[in-house]
Amino acid sequence: MKLKNGAEYMESLRILNPVIYYKGEKIKDVTRNPATAPHVRSAAMTYALASSEEYRELATATSHLTGHTISRFTHVHQNMEDLIKKIKLLRVLGQKTGSCFQRCVGLDGINAVYTITYEVDQKHGTDYLERFKKWLTYIQDENLMVVGAMTDPKGDRSKSPANQPDPDQYLHVVEHRDDGIVIRGAKLHMTGAVNSHEILVMPTTALDEESKDYAVVCAMPVNTPGITMIFGRQAGDDRRDKLERIDVGKPQFGAVGGEAVIVFENVFVPKERIFLDGETEFTNSIVYRFAAHHRANYGACKTGLMDVLIGAVSYLCQIQGTARASHVRDKVTEMIHLSETLYSSSIACSAEGWKTPSGGYMVDTMLANVCKHNVTRLHFEVARLAIDLAGGLLATLPSEYDLASEDVGHLVRKYFSGVSGIPTEHRMKIVRLSEAMTSGTALVESMHGAGSPQAQRIMIFREGNLDKKIKLARVLAGIPGD
Amino acid sequence: MKLKNGAEYMESLRILNPVIYYKGEKIKDVTRNPATAPHVRSAAMTYALASSEEYRELATATSHLTGHTISRFTHVHQNMEDLIKKIKLLRVLGQKTGSCFQRCVGLDGINAVYTITYEVDQKHGTDYLERFKKWLTYIQDENLMVVGAMTDPKGDRSKSPANQPDPDQYLHVVEHRDDGIVIRGAKLHMTGAVNSHEILVMPTTALDEESKDYAVVCAMPVNTPGITMIFGRQAGDDRRDKLERIDVGKPQFGAVGGEAVIVFENVFVPKERIFLDGETEFTNSIVYRFAAHHRANYGACKTGLMDVLIGAVSYLCQIQGTARASHVRDKVTEMIHLSETLYSSSIACSAEGWKTPSGGYMVDTMLANVCKHNVTRLHFEVARLAIDLAGGLLATLPSEYDLASEDVGHLVRKYFSGVSGIPTEHRMKIVRLSEAMTSGTALVESMHGAGSPQAQRIMIFREGNLDKKIKLARVLAGIPGD
Amino acid sequence: MKLKNGAEYMESLRILNPVIYYKGEKIKDVTRNPATAPHVRSAAMTYALASSEEYRELATATSHLTGHTISRFTHVHQNMEDLIKKIKLLRVLGQKTGSCFQRCVGLDGINAVYTITYEVDQKHGTDYLERFKKWLTYIQDENLMVVGAMTDPKGDRSKSPANQPDPDQYLHVVEHRDDGIVIRGAKLHMTGAVNSHEILVMPTTALDEESKDYAVVCAMPVNTPGITMIFGRQAGDDRRDKLERIDVGKPQFGAVGGEAVIVFENVFVPKERIFLDGETEFTNSIVYRFAAHHRANYGACKTGLMDVLIGAVSYLCQIQGTARASHVRDKVTEMIHLSETLYSSSIACSAEGWKTPSGGYMVDTMLANVCKHNVTRLHFEVARLAIDLAGGLLATLPSEYDLASEDVGHLVRKYFSGVSGIPTEHRMKIVRLSEAMTSGTALVESMHGAGSPQAQRIMIFREGNLDKKIKLARVLAGIPGD
Amino acid sequence: MKLKNGAEYMESLRILNPVIYYKGEKIKDVTRNPATAPHVRSAAMTYALASSEEYRELATATSHLTGHTISRFTHVHQNMEDLIKKIKLLRVLGQKTGSCFQRCVGLDGINAVYTITYEVDQKHGTDYLERFKKWLTYIQDENLMVVGAMTDPKGDRSKSPANQPDPDQYLHVVEHRDDGIVIRGAKLHMTGAVNSHEILVMPTTALDEESKDYAVVCAMPVNTPGITMIFGRQAGDDRRDKLERIDVGKPQFGAVGGEAVIVFENVFVPKERIFLDGETEFTNSIVYRFAAHHRANYGACKTGLMDVLIGAVSYLCQIQGTARASHVRDKVTEMIHLSETLYSSSIACSAEGWKTPSGGYMVDTMLANVCKHNVTRLHFEVARLAIDLAGGLLATLPSEYDLASEDVGHLVRKYFSGVSGIPTEHRMKIVRLSEAMTSGTALVESMHGAGSPQAQRIMIFREGNLDKKIKLARVLAGIPGD
Repeated sequence: MKLKNGAEYMESLRILNPVIYYKGEKIKDVTRNPATAPHVRSAAMTYALASSEEYRELATATSHLTGHTISRFTHVHQNMEDLIKKIKLLRVLGQKTGSCFQRCVGLDGINAVYTITYEVDQKHGTDYLERFKKWLTYIQDENLMVVGAMTDPKGDRSKSPANQPDPDQYLHVVEHRDDGIVIRGAKLHMTGAVNSHEILVMPTTALDEESKDYAVVCAMPVNTPGITMIFGRQAGDDRRDKLERIDVGKPQFGAVGGEAVIVFENVFVPKERIFLDGETEFTNSIVYRFAAHHRANYGACKTGLMDVLIGAVSYLCQIQGTARASHVRDKVTEMIHLSETLYSSSIACSAEGWKTPSGGYMVDTMLANVCKHNVTRLHFEVARLAIDLAGGLLATLPSEYDLASEDVGHLVRKYFSGVSGIPTEHRMKIVRLSEAMTSGTALVESMHGAGSPQAQRIMIFREGNLDKKIKLARVLAGIPGD
Repeated sequence: MKLKNGAEYMESLRILNPVIYYKGEKIKDVTRNPATAPHVRSAAMTYALASSEEYRELATATSHLTGHTISRFTHVHQNMEDLIKKIKLLRVLGQKTGSCFQRCVGLDGINAVYTITYEVDQKHGTDYLERFKKWLTYIQDENLMVVGAMTDPKGDRSKSPANQPDPDQYLHVVEHRDDGIVIRGAKLHMTGAVNSHEILVMPTTALDEESKDYAVVCAMPVNTPGITMIFGRQAGDDRRDKLERIDVGKPQFGAVGGEAVIVFENVFVPKERIFLDGETEFTNSIVYRFAAHHRANYGACKTGLMDVLIGAVSYLCQIQGTARASHVRDKVTEMIHLSETLYSSSIACSAEGWKTPSGGYMVDTMLANVCKHNVTRLHFEVARLAIDLAGGLLATLPSEYDLASEDVGHLVRKYFSGVSGIPTEHRMKIVRLSEAMTSGTALVESMHGAGSPQAQRIMIFREGNLDKKIKLARVLAGIPGD
Repeated sequence: MKLKNGAEYMESLRILNPVIYYKGEKIKDVTRNPATAPHVRSAAMTYALASSEEYRELATATSHLTGHTISRFTHVHQNMEDLIKKIKLLRVLGQKTGSCFQRCVGLDGINAVYTITYEVDQKHGTDYLERFKKWLTYIQDENLMVVGAMTDPKGDRSKSPANQPDPDQYLHVVEHRDDGIVIRGAKLHMTGAVNSHEILVMPTTALDEESKDYAVVCAMPVNTPGITMIFGRQAGDDRRDKLERIDVGKPQFGAVGGEAVIVFENVFVPKERIFLDGETEFTNSIVYRFAAHHRANYGACKTGLMDVLIGAVSYLCQIQGTARASHVRDKVTEMIHLSETLYSSSIACSAEGWKTPSGGYMVDTMLANVCKHNVTRLHFEVARLAIDLAGGLLATLPSEYDLASEDVGHLVRKYFSGVSGIPTEHRMKIVRLSEAMTSGTALVESMHGAGSPQAQRIMIFREGNLDKKIKLARVLAGIPGD
Repeated sequence: MKLKNGAEYMESLRILNPVIYYKGEKIKDVTRNPATAPHVRSAAMTYALASSEEYRELATATSHLTGHTISRFTHVHQNMEDLIKKIKLLRVLGQKTGSCFQRCVGLDGINAVYTITYEVDQKHGTDYLERFKKWLTYIQDENLMVVGAMTDPKGDRSKSPANQPDPDQYLHVVEHRDDGIVIRGAKLHMTGAVNSHEILVMPTTALDEESKDYAVVCAMPVNTPGITMIFGRQAGDDRRDKLERIDVGKPQFGAVGGEAVIVFENVFVPKERIFLDGETEFTNSIVYRFAAHHRANYGACKTGLMDVLIGAVSYLCQIQGTARASHVRDKVTEMIHLSETLYSSSIACSAEGWKTPSGGYMVDTMLANVCKHNVTRLHFEVARLAIDLAGGLLATLPSEYDLASEDVGHLVRKYFSGVSGIPTEHRMKIVRLSEAMTSGTALVESMHGAGSPQAQRIMIFREGNLDKKIKLARVLAGIPGD
C-alpha cells in the first residue's frame, strides 16, 4: 500500500487535479475546497483505519494476487470471513464519520468485474481477466480509490438505450481503434468521484444485441482528457461552504457521500484498460453482482450512521430531562431494533456467501436485496423517531451567529438551556447533528443508493422460487402432483 | 376589515417594525428581508383570498360580535359549517403556498381563550370575556394577524414550572401593578411571530396552585418594549437568503412557517389586555382547547401541501417517462390515500363539533388528536414515497449556477434532460420543489407543530372511555355486571 | 313498519323458509339452527333498536316516499344528517353485537339503485324508478330485510363475463319473456342472505355492449323457486354449532356476518321487479355507488367491533394485573387511535356527502374508499395489538369442558386465575371473546367485504385529480403553464 | 440414536402414556387421538429427516460428549456452523410440516442449562454439569424428545413470585429431601408436552433471594406420578377432531404446536435430575440464554411456514387467473421480502455466535431478540397479504360436506371453479390450507412463543449500548469528552 494514511491520500488527490465544477466554478483543490473537503476526510478515514492498531484486521486484507497486505477496499473477497469483515468495517466507518466514505462503490465494482471477466474469458477465449488483474494489482499496490461508474442518465426511461432520441443518454463506444476505444456519455450520482483516483466504467442495465456498443467495461484515471465532473448540491451545503462551526452539524464530515456527474466527451481508453467490449450477454450479471454486493453494504454503513443518530437523540433527551420517560425509552428501543434489523441482513447475506467460478465470493443475492430494501424504509422510520425525540428545535433553533451575538447571545444561552451543567452550546451542536442526519440528502441516499426500491423488488420476486413454494403448499394440502 | 389585501398587510408590518434578530443581525424590514419575506408572502395569501371572488366564502365570515364581514382567521366558530369551512380554507391555502401560512395559530388561540374566559367569568365573576371581546373586535375590524404564544422553553423537563432552577423557563408574572402586570420569560417555536401584529400569550401546560404566577393569558402588540424575537434557521435557508431562482425550490414561499423565539424581558401588559391571571384550574382547558383546534387543522393544511407534492413527483415521473409504470401508479395511489386519510380526520372532527357554553364551537377532541397524530406518521410516509418516485436527483442535482455556466451549462442541459419537449430547467425546478418539500424543516413541523406525538397519545388514551368499552365486552362475553 | 321487533322478524323468517344447505344438510329453521341463529340475532338487533327509546332517532327515518316512520335500513338518504346518523347507528350496532348485522348491504343496494334508475329513466324514458319506488314502499312498510346481491363467481378472472368458458360464472338473463325475465348464475359471499326476505340483484362490474344480458337489476323473495343457498363455513363454527357456552366467545352473536352463495337456476322475475335490463352504460355507476356507500360503513361498524375488542383486552390486562404498565397503556392508546382513524373517514365521507339528481344523497367517493382501504390494514393492526395484550392463552387455553371436569376443573380454576376477586371463568370468557374477534373470518371480512383492497386503490387513483395536483406544483415551482 | 424414525418415536410414546386431558376427557393414545396425532406427526418429522439421505447432514450432529451420531435436537452447539445448520434444518421442517414441530424448545433448554450449569459449578463447586451430562447422554443416545418447561401461570403479574396470594402460581420446591426435592406448580403453554418423553423444568424469570425455592432446574419423564397435562384448544380444532379431509386445511399436521398446561402436584425429583436448586443469581442467565436461542429459531421455522403460505396463495391466484396482475406480483414480492427479512436475523445471530466458557455456543442476543421481535410483526403482515390475495372465500367457502352432497355438490363444483383444468376440489383444499395458516392459533404463536414482544424490547434496550452511541455522537458533533 503506497498510500499509507489520510495525509498521503490527500496529497495524491492534489497531484491528480481532475476537472470538477461546483456551483458554476472550477474546484482547484478537492482536499481544501469546503464543498468537497468533508467528503475527502470521510474517504481518508478508510486510509486511516488501515494503519490503526485497533482496526487493521478489519481494514486490510492479503491480496490473493500478490500476497501483499492491501486495503480491504481493493480486495477480491476470498471467503465468507472476508465478506463479514467487510460488513464490520463498514459499520465502524459509519460510526466514525456519520457519513458515506464512498469507497465501497469501487470495491463492489472490482468484485463484480473480476468474477464476470473470468466467465467471459471462459466463454469467448478473451483475456479480460488478465488485463483486469494487472490493473487491479496496480490499484492494490498503490492503494488507490476507485469510483464504480454505473448509472447512466437514461433520458426517456420508457425507451431502451439504443432507442433514445439522444444516443448519449447511455454511455457507449463511439469509435473502435486498434489501440483502444473512444467513449461518450455520462454517469450520474457518482459517489466519491471527485476524490477518487480511477474510474471503473460499467453498463447500467442488461443489454441486448441491438445495444452492443453500450456493453463496455473499462477503467481510466479521473484526470483523463475529456472527463468533466460537476459536483451536486446537498441539503445544508451552504452551511458547509461557509465553514460554520456549529450549524453544519458534522464539522468534519459531509452529509453523506458527495455525488457528481461524470461526463465523458469522447474519452480514449487504451486496450489494456478494456474489460468488456460488446459481450452483451454478460451485462446483466455485472449489474446483478455489483448491485448485490453494494446492497449488502447498506445494512452496515447505515447502521453505523444510525448508531450515531440514536446516540445523538438519546443525549438530547438527557439534556432535556426526558431520558427516563417510558415513551422515550420505547422509541429508542424501536430505533435500535430497526437498525439492528438492517444489520442482520448485511451479516446474513455474507454468512450465506458463495464462491463464484473465478474464486471470488458473492453475497447471497436474495438477502442482499432484502437488506437494501429494508434500508429504503427503516432508515426513514429511524429518522422519524429521531425527529420525534429531538423535538421542535430541529426546525426552529437560532443560528450560531445569534449565539455569538453580543445583543442576543445571552438570550439564546438562557432560553435554549436544558438540565443544569450542560452548556447550551452542547445542546445546539447535538440538535444540529441530529438535523443534519435526518434531513434531505442523508435520507435520499438511503432510498436510491445501490438502486431504487423497485430494483430490489424485481430481484426479490425473481429469486423467490415460487414454483418450489407452490409445490410445498400442494403437498401439505394433499393435492396430488401434476 | 381594514387591511384588505396582501399589500396593505405588508405595509402595516413595515410600520410596526418589531425587534427581530436573524443570524446575529437585526432585521430591518420583515417584508423585504429574504429570510422572512417568503413567510410574509404566505401569510399575505390569507389576506388575498379574502378579497378573491373564488374563495371569499371560505376566507371570510360574519362576526357574531359586530355583524361585520371579517377574515375567518379572526372568527369565533359559531357552528359546524364554520369549522368545516375553515378546514377547506386551510387546504386551499396549503395548495397555494405549499407552505405554512401561520395564521391559524392565532385563530385557535382566539377560540380557546374566548370559550374559556366565558367559563372563568361564570365561576369567578371576573370580566375577562368582556375585555377579550373588546380586543377581538379590534383584531377583527383591523384584520390583524395574531400569534398564539404557548410553548415555553421548559428547561429541565423532569421538573415542574415552579421547580425550575431558572424560574423564567416558563413565562410568568413578575409584578402585579394596579394598571397591569409585568411578565418575563420566552415562547419558543413561534410560527409567524415576526410577521404578526399581536401576541396572544397563553400558558403551556396545566398548572397547579404552586404555579399561580404562571397562569396568565394576555395580549400585546409585537413591538411592545421588552420584546425581542430571534428568528430560527430552516433547512435550505441559505438558498433562500441568497435569493436563488431555481434551487430554492419554492421561489415565492418559505419552507414551512418561519419560527422565532419571542423573549419577554419584563414586559408591561395593561389591565384591559389581561384575560386570565392566576385562575390555574382553567389552564388545562386552555391548552386542551387550543391544542384540539390546532391539531384539527393539520389534516387540512398538510393535505394541501401533499397535493402539491403528489403533483410534483407525478410530473417528474412524466418527465422521466415512468408515469405509466404500475409501481409508480401504485405509489401515487398510496400517497393520495394517506393524505386523504389525514383530511378525513380534519373534516370528521369538525363535523362532530360541539357548542361550548360560550356559544363558540369546539372540534371533537378525540378525532382532532387522531388527526394530528396521523400527520406525525403519514406525512413522513408520503415524503418517503415522494423521495422514492423523485429519484436520486433530489440529492445529486447540480446547482442552478452550473446550469447557467458557460463552461458546463450545456452538459447539465444535455444529461439532465428527460422525455422530449420538456426543458431541463423545468425538471430542475420540480426536483428542487420536491427536495424542499421532503427535507428537514417541512417534516419536523409535521411532527412537533400543535404538539409532539406523545401529547396526542395522552389525550387519546384519556378520551378513550375504557370503562364503557370494557362494559361492552363483558356484556358480549356473557359476564354479569359488577 | 309491520315488523316491529326481533321476535316478529324471526317469525317472518320462519314463514318464508327458503332453500338453504349447510354442511351438506338442509336447514329447517334459520332462526333456530345453531349455525344461523346467531346471525339472525344480530340482524334482529336492527329491529330491536328501532323500537328502543334510546336509539330510535338513529334507527328510524321518515320515508320521503310515504312520510311513514321506517327503519333507517330501508331509507333513501335525503341529506348529510341522514348519512351521519347511519354511521352512528352502525357503530352502536357493532358495539352491541360485536358482529356484522348484515342489513346495510341491502340499504346500500337500495340507495345505489334508486339514484341510478332515476338517471336511466332520464336517458332512456324507461320507468324503472317507478317500479323501484313501488317495491321500496313495500319493503319500507313491511320493514323487510334485503340482501344486496352483487358479487359473481367470476370463474377465470383474466376473462370478461362474455368470454368465460362457462357463461354462468356471471349472472345473466337467459330468457326474455313478455311478463318478465329468466336469470341464471350465482352470487357469492352473500352476507345475511339466509335471513333476508328479499334479494336485490345487481351486476358485479362495469359491462360493455357485448355483455348486455349481464346488465340486470331485479328483486325477488328469497324463497322464489329456483333459488338455492349454501351457507359457508366460518372460523370456530363447530363451537357455535355445538352450542358451547364459553368457548364460542360470543354466545349470542356470530363471528361476523354469515355468508352464503345464492344460486339462481332459471329463476323467473316478473316485469315490475326488473329495475335495469340491458342498459350496460349504467352498470359502472351502480357498482361505483353501491361500493362507495358500502365502503363508508366499514369505518363505523368495525369501529364498534374494535370498541368491544379494546374493552376485552383492557379487561384482560386488569385481570392479569398488567393494566397500568406503560407499554400496555401505549398499546391500548394505539388501538384507540387506529380505530378512531377509521371512524374519521366514515364521518368525513358522510359530512362531504352530495345530492344526486334523484335527490338521494351519496357519500364522498374518495373518502369512502379511503375509509374501507384503511380498514383492510388497521383492523389487522388492532387485532395484532389485541393478540399482543391478550397473551398466549388465546392459543392454549383449555376448553370449557375441562373447566367443568371433575378430574381437572380445579386445576384449570387454580392455574388460570388472575388477580384476586375475579373468577377464572370470567377470564376464560374474555379470552374466548378476544380469540373469536381476532381470528379468521372476522379479519377476512374486513379485508374483502365491500370490495378487496385493489378495488379501492383503483378508485382512489381515479378520483385523485392528478392534473390539478400537477398544476399546483408547477405554479409553486415557477414553471409557466402549457 | 435408539429411536430411528417416526414409527419408533410413536411407539415409544404409546409406552410412556402420561396423564393428559382434552375437552374434559383423558387421552388414551396421543399418537392416535385426532387432537394430538397431527402434532405427533410434526414432531415425528424431526425423526424422519435424521434418517433421510437428503437432510441427514442438517438433522444430525456428532455428540461432543460421546462422539455418537445424534439428533441435532439433542446437541450442544459446538460452533457457528452448528448454529447455522440448525437454522436451515428448522426452515426445512417448517416447509415440510407447515406447522410447529415442537422439538426446538427442548434443544434450547438443553443449551441454556448446559452452559449455565458449567458457570454455577465454577462459582459454587457444585456438580450440576456432571449430572446434566449424564442425563443428556441418555437423551442423546435414546434420541428422546424433551419439552423445555419455563412459563409459569404468574397469577397477579403486578406481584413477584414470593408475593403471590397463591404461592403455586410459580413452580417451586415445597420439600427438600435427602434424595431429592418435591415440586409444585404448573407450566403453561407447553408446546409438544403431550408427545415429549422428558420435561426439563426451568424458572420463568430472574429471581432474588426471597424466591430461593423458585430457583429450580430439573428433569423428569412426562409420566412421573403427580404430573397432569391439559391440552389446550386451537383454532379449528373441531375440524381436526372430526378428521375432516379438506376443511381441516393441513390433513397431516396441526395448526402450530399443540400446547398443554403441565401441572406438578407434589412431584418428586431425584437428586441426579436436579440441575439448579436455589442459586438465584443464575436464573436471569438461564432465562436469557434459553430465550435468545429460542428467539433465534423463529426466523427459521416461521420462514418455512411462510414459504408454504406464499406458495399457497400464489397457486390460488393461478387458479383464479390473477397471478400475472401487477398488484398480485407486488404483494407476493412483499411477502417474500418480509419472510426473508426474518430469515436474515436467524442466520445473522447464528453467524455472530460466541463461545460460552462451557464450550457451548450462544447466538448473538441482540440479533436473536431482533429476530423474534420482527416475527411478532411481520408474520401478521405476511398473513394479511395472504388473506388479501386469497380472497373472500377464506371466510365464505361451503364445507366439504356440501361438495360431497348429492343435492348441492354440483353447484359447489360449478360455482367455485376457477381457470379451466383445475378441479374445484384443489381450489377448496388450498383455500382451506390458507385459512388454517392465517387464522387464530398460527398467528398467536408467532406473537407469544419464545416470549411476548415486550420481553424482546427490554432485551434490545439493555443490549443497545447507549453510552457508546452517545459517545459516537458527541465526537462527531465536536463536543469535548466529559
